[in-house]
Amino acid sequence: MSKLLRVNTRKKTFLFEEPGNSISSLGGRGLTSRMILDEVPADCHPLSRDNKIVIAPGILTGTPAANSSRLSVGSKSPLTGGIKESNSGGLVSYKLARLGIKAIVLEDKPEDDAWSMIIIKKNSVEILPADEYIGKGTNEMVEKMWAKYGDKVGVMCIGAAGEQRLSAASIQLADPHGRPGRAIGRGGLGAVMGSKKIKVIIVDDKGAEKVEMADKEAFKAASKAWAKMLADHPVTGQGLPGFGTAILVNIINEAGALPTKNFRSGRFEHAKDISGEKMVELIKERGGVVSEGCCPGCVIKCSQSYNDKDGNYLTSGFEYETIWAAGAHTMIKDMDDIAMLDRICDDVGVDTIDCCVALGIAMEGGVIEWGDGKAAIELLKKVGTDDPMGRIIGNGAHFTGQALGVDRVPTCKKQALPAYDPRAVKGVGVTYATTPMGADHTAGYGVTANILSVGGTVDPFEKPGNIDLSKNLQIATAAVDSAGFCLFVAFAVLDTENALQLIADMVNGRYGTRITPDDIIELGKSVLKSEYEFNEKAGFTKVDDQLPAFFKEQFPPHNVTWDYSIDELQEAKNF
Amino acid sequence: MSKLLRVNTRKKTFLFEEPGNSISSLGGRGLTSRMILDEVPADCHPLSRDNKIVIAPGILTGTPAANSSRLSVGSKSPLTGGIKESNSGGLVSYKLARLGIKAIVLEDKPEDDAWSMIIIKKNSVEILPADEYIGKGTNEMVEKMWAKYGDKVGVMCIGAAGEQRLSAASIQLADPHGRPGRAIGRGGLGAVMGSKKIKVIIVDDKGAEKVEMADKEAFKAASKAWAKMLADHPVTGQGLPGFGTAILVNIINEAGALPTKNFRSGRFEHAKDISGEKMVELIKERGGVVSEGCCPGCVIKCSQSYNDKDGNYLTSGFEYETIWAAGAHTMIKDMDDIAMLDRICDDVGVDTIDCCVALGIAMEGGVIEWGDGKAAIELLKKVGTDDPMGRIIGNGAHFTGQALGVDRVPTCKKQALPAYDPRAVKGVGVTYATTPMGADHTAGYGVTANILSVGGTVDPFEKPGNIDLSKNLQIATAAVDSAGFCLFVAFAVLDTENALQLIADMVNGRYGTRITPDDIIELGKSVLKSEYEFNEKAGFTKVDDQLPAFFKEQFPPHNVTWDYSIDELQEAKNF
Repeated sequence: MSKLLRVNTRKKTFLFEEPGNSISSLGGRGLTSRMILDEVPADCHPLSRDNKIVIAPGILTGTPAANSSRLSVGSKSPLTGGIKESNSGGLVSYKLARLGIKAIVLEDKPEDDAWSMIIIKKNSVEILPADEYIGKGTNEMVEKMWAKYGDKVGVMCIGAAGEQRLSAASIQLADPHGRPGRAIGRGGLGAVMGSKKIKVIIVDDKGAEKVEMADKEAFKAASKAWAKMLADHPVTGQGLPGFGTAILVNIINEAGALPTKNFRSGRFEHAKDISGEKMVELIKERGGVVSEGCCPGCVIKCSQSYNDKDGNYLTSGFEYETIWAAGAHTMIKDMDDIAMLDRICDDVGVDTIDCCVALGIAMEGGVIEWGDGKAAIELLKKVGTDDPMGRIIGNGAHFTGQALGVDRVPTCKKQALPAYDPRAVKGVGVTYATTPMGADHTAGYGVTANILSVGGTVDPFEKPGNIDLSKNLQIATAAVDSAGFCLFVAFAVLDTENALQLIADMVNGRYGTRITPDDIIELGKSVLKSEYEFNEKAGFTKVDDQLPAFFKEQFPPHNVTWDYSIDELQEAKNF
Repeated sequence: MSKLLRVNTRKKTFLFEEPGNSISSLGGRGLTSRMILDEVPADCHPLSRDNKIVIAPGILTGTPAANSSRLSVGSKSPLTGGIKESNSGGLVSYKLARLGIKAIVLEDKPEDDAWSMIIIKKNSVEILPADEYIGKGTNEMVEKMWAKYGDKVGVMCIGAAGEQRLSAASIQLADPHGRPGRAIGRGGLGAVMGSKKIKVIIVDDKGAEKVEMADKEAFKAASKAWAKMLADHPVTGQGLPGFGTAILVNIINEAGALPTKNFRSGRFEHAKDISGEKMVELIKERGGVVSEGCCPGCVIKCSQSYNDKDGNYLTSGFEYETIWAAGAHTMIKDMDDIAMLDRICDDVGVDTIDCCVALGIAMEGGVIEWGDGKAAIELLKKVGTDDPMGRIIGNGAHFTGQALGVDRVPTCKKQALPAYDPRAVKGVGVTYATTPMGADHTAGYGVTANILSVGGTVDPFEKPGNIDLSKNLQIATAAVDSAGFCLFVAFAVLDTENALQLIADMVNGRYGTRITPDDIIELGKSVLKSEYEFNEKAGFTKVDDQLPAFFKEQFPPHNVTWDYSIDELQEAKNF
C-alpha cells in the first residue's frame, strides 16, 4: 500500500505514514482536496506555517493506462484565498506512483532564509541545502538537475516568482524532453512552495517495481480499449496531436468568443497570425517538433517544441490559453513575441494566464500600449527581479488592477478568466463563476457541447442547459482529476458510451475493488463538496460565485450578455 | 428642509432633491450608510460607475452645539470591499449644513480623462474643469483654493494618490487655519473620488442664514450644558487640549499595549522620544501651536501646528495613531522624521495608519531597515509618482504584504490595525474584529474603560466584559457619528449621566422632535444593522470578523494572547 511522505520544512525532517481509512482510496485532486480540508485551517494565511502543500499522483497513475500521469498539487491558494488543486503533466507523478508514494505533504515553514531541496529515491529521502540555486530560472534548474541527478529524473521547481512568494507563481515540471514547460500554473501554489523555502523536488524511480495489479488481465483489456478510444476520437486522435490546443484560436474566433482587448469583442482581426495552423507552419519551417507528449503514457501528444527564427528552442507546452492571454487579450499579433512571453512565464515561474491577463490590465492602465509585444516582454521580464512592477504583475491580474486603479478586471475569486468569453460560451462561463477554484476553464469545460459538439450540443449564447452542462462537467472533471487522467481524455469519454465503465474496470483491475460508473460520479461530487466546505470555512459565499459586472455589457459580434442572477448560478452547485 | 445635491460626474450635471421619508431624519454616518445600502449594488467594483460617494454633515451640524461639525463620507470601500464611513473635521460640514445641503451625492464616473471640481455657493453649483490642478499636493491645493475662492472656504480634495485610485487614498479637508491636515483617511475613499475624477470640492457659505431652530431656548440651554460638560471633563478639558491625542503614547506604552516592531511587543524603548510630552516641548521650542481646533465650534482643540527645526510649519493634526504607525510600529524614534511622514501622507493624500503600517511591512519584507526614518521618508515619497513601489505602499498594508510575500500583516477586512494591541486592549480588539468598517479604533473605542477608566473599568487583558464593552461603544459611536459630533465627546458622555438627554434636547430644540435617549441608542443600532446588511450582500461572513492568526502569539510584556473564538466574536454584533 502506498504511503504519505510528510516533510517538515522547518525541521528538515520527514516520515512515511500509512494513509488513514478516510483517504486510503483517494488520489489526485480527491486526495489533495480532502487533506487540505482536513489539515489546513481554512482561515489561515496561505503563506503561513499553517498552510500545507499536498502533491499527489492520481488513482491510476503509475499504471500503463493511457494519459494517467497527471500530478495534482493542492493547498490554500494565495491568489484566491480558497482551496486549490492545480494539475499538470511531467515526470514526477508517474515516478512517485511507482515509488509507492501516495502523496508528498510539505508542512510548516522555516524561520530562517535557508533554502532546501528534496531528493526522493527508491530507498532514500534527502533534504539538502539549495541556496546555490536561488534566483535560477526553471530552464536552468531542469538542465542542472538532469545533469546532476540523471536524465529523466522527475523535477518540480519554482522560479524567482515563487521565491518571492508572488500570488501568481507557478510550480514548473520537467517534461520527458527536459523542458520545464508543464506548469502547476493556477492559483499561485509556487508562492506556497516558496514560503516553505523548497526550491526543487527531484524524484528518481530507478529500481522501482511495476505497480501491483490485482487483476492484470482485466486491467489490460480495459486499458487497451481505453487507448483505442483516445486514438479513435477526432479531437484526441487528430485535432490535438495535429495542432496542439492552439487549434482553438481559429475555432473560438470564428465562434465570436475569443476575448479581444480585455474582453471587448469576440473576434481578433489578427487571429490567423496567432492560430494553431500558423504555429505549426512556423514549427515546421524552423525545425521544431509539432507533436510530443508531456508525460509518460500519453497517446494524445498535444505538446510541441517551438523554435525562434534562428531555429533555436524557445518554448514548449505552448497552449491556446497562453496564446490568447498574450495575444488577442493584449492585441499582440506576433507569434514570436507571444512565444517569448510564454517562455519568460515558464522560466520565472508564473501562471501564463494570470500574468498575461495582467499585461493586458497594464495596457488598460496605460503602463504600456495595446498590442506592443516588445514592451510587454520588457514588462514581464521585471517579474522576479527587484523591480516593484514585477511584484505587481507577478501577483496576477486582480492585483495589477488594484495597483493601477483599473476597474475592468476579468477575474472571479481573484483568478483571471481564461480564453473563452463567458457571454458567448455560457457553459464555461458558469464554470468560471461557480467552481471553487476561481475562474478556470479546466474545471468544467463547457466548450465541449457549446462549441465542439462533443458530448451533445448546448446553445452557447442562451441560458437553457448551460447550468446543467457546467454542473455535470464539473463533477466529471473532479473525478477525472482524481484518477490522474489528463483532462483531454474527456473529449473521448463524453462521446463514448462505456468510457466510465472502462475507467471503473481499470481501477478494479488495479486495486481489486468493484466500483461502478456511478461510484465515479459520486467521487466527483464528494470532491467538490469537500472543496465547497473548505471555501465556506474560508469565508466564501454565493457573492463570490459571480462574474464582474462589466460582463453585463453586450459582447460583439453576437451582442450576447451575461445575465445570470446570483441564485441561478447557485444551481450549478446543487447536486 | 435641507436637500440632497446629486452630481452626475459623467454628465457634469447636478440637481437638488428632497430627501425621501426613509432618510429625512438621518444625518452623518446614519445617512451615508443608509444611502449606500439603498443605492449602491453591494457587489459592484468600488471604482466602477455603480459606486457612489455620499458626503453628509451630521444631524446637529450647523448649530452652535459644541464639536458638532464633523463630516461623514460614505461609499463602498476600495480597501475593504465593504461599506465605509469615514469622518473628519474641517470646514466643509458646517458650511454644507448652513447652506441647507443634507448631503452631496457623487454619482457615475467620466469615460474620459478630464478632471472636474465642484464649487458650491449659496445660490449656485458649478462643475468646472480642474485639469490644471492634477498632480498637486493637498497643501498647495488648499492654498490655491483659498487664494482664488476666499479665505475660510471649505475645501475637500484629493492628492496624487486619490488621482491614481490607490486603495489607501484619503480625502483631505482644510482646517480653519488653511491646512489640509484633516483626513477622511480610512478605507480609501480618496480613490473613489479619484475614480469620479473630482479633484476638489469647494463650499462657500457666504450669505447663508443661521440654521433654523424649532425651539431656540431649549436648544440653547442644552447646548450650554453640553459645552460645560466637555470643558469640565479631564480628558476633553485638559488632556486633549494639553498634549493632543499623542498624550496616549506614554499611557499606552506604560500599559504594555503600544504595538512595537509590527506587533511583537507592547513597549517601545524610545516611547518618550515620540510622546505627546515631547511633541509639546518641540512645538513650544519652535514657535508652533500646542492647541487649536480643527472645525467650527470645537471646544476641545486637540490639534496643533508642528514646526521643523528651523521653525517652519511642517504638519498639523499630528495624531497618536500616526505617531504610533510611523514610530513604534516601524521603530522610528525621531519625531521630525515621523512628522515628515505625516506631512507626506497628508500632502499626497493617503491614510497615515494604513500607509505607515505598510512602511513597517516593507521593513518586514526587507525593503528598508527597521527604524530607518530617512529610508521610510524616501519610500513614502514614491506614493503618487510613477514609481510602482509607490503604488504598492499607497494601496496600504494588506496590499504591501501581498506584494512582498509577507504573512505577518496586521489587518482586519484588509484595513490596517491601529495603535492599540488587541491582545492587551481587548475591548478595542473586539471592535477591530467586528466593526463593519475594518480594523478601526474609532468605531468602538474600548480604550476608555480598558485603560482610561472612562465609563467604568473593564480588565483589558481578560475576556469578561470586553464583548459588551465593544458592542455598546460601537452602538453609541454609530449614533455619535450620525449626530456630527467629534468622537472625543464620548469621553465626557460616558462619564456624564444626563449626556444622552442633552443630545436629545439639542436635537429636539433644533427640529421640534421629541426623541429620547433610547431613540439615540436605537439609531446607533439601526446604523450598524444597515452596515451589516451591506457587508453581507458584499460577501462578508463571520470569517471576516477575525484577527490574523499571529495574534495568538504571546504578547510581551504581559504575555497576553488573542483567544476569542469565531462565534464568541459574533456576540458583539448580537443586539
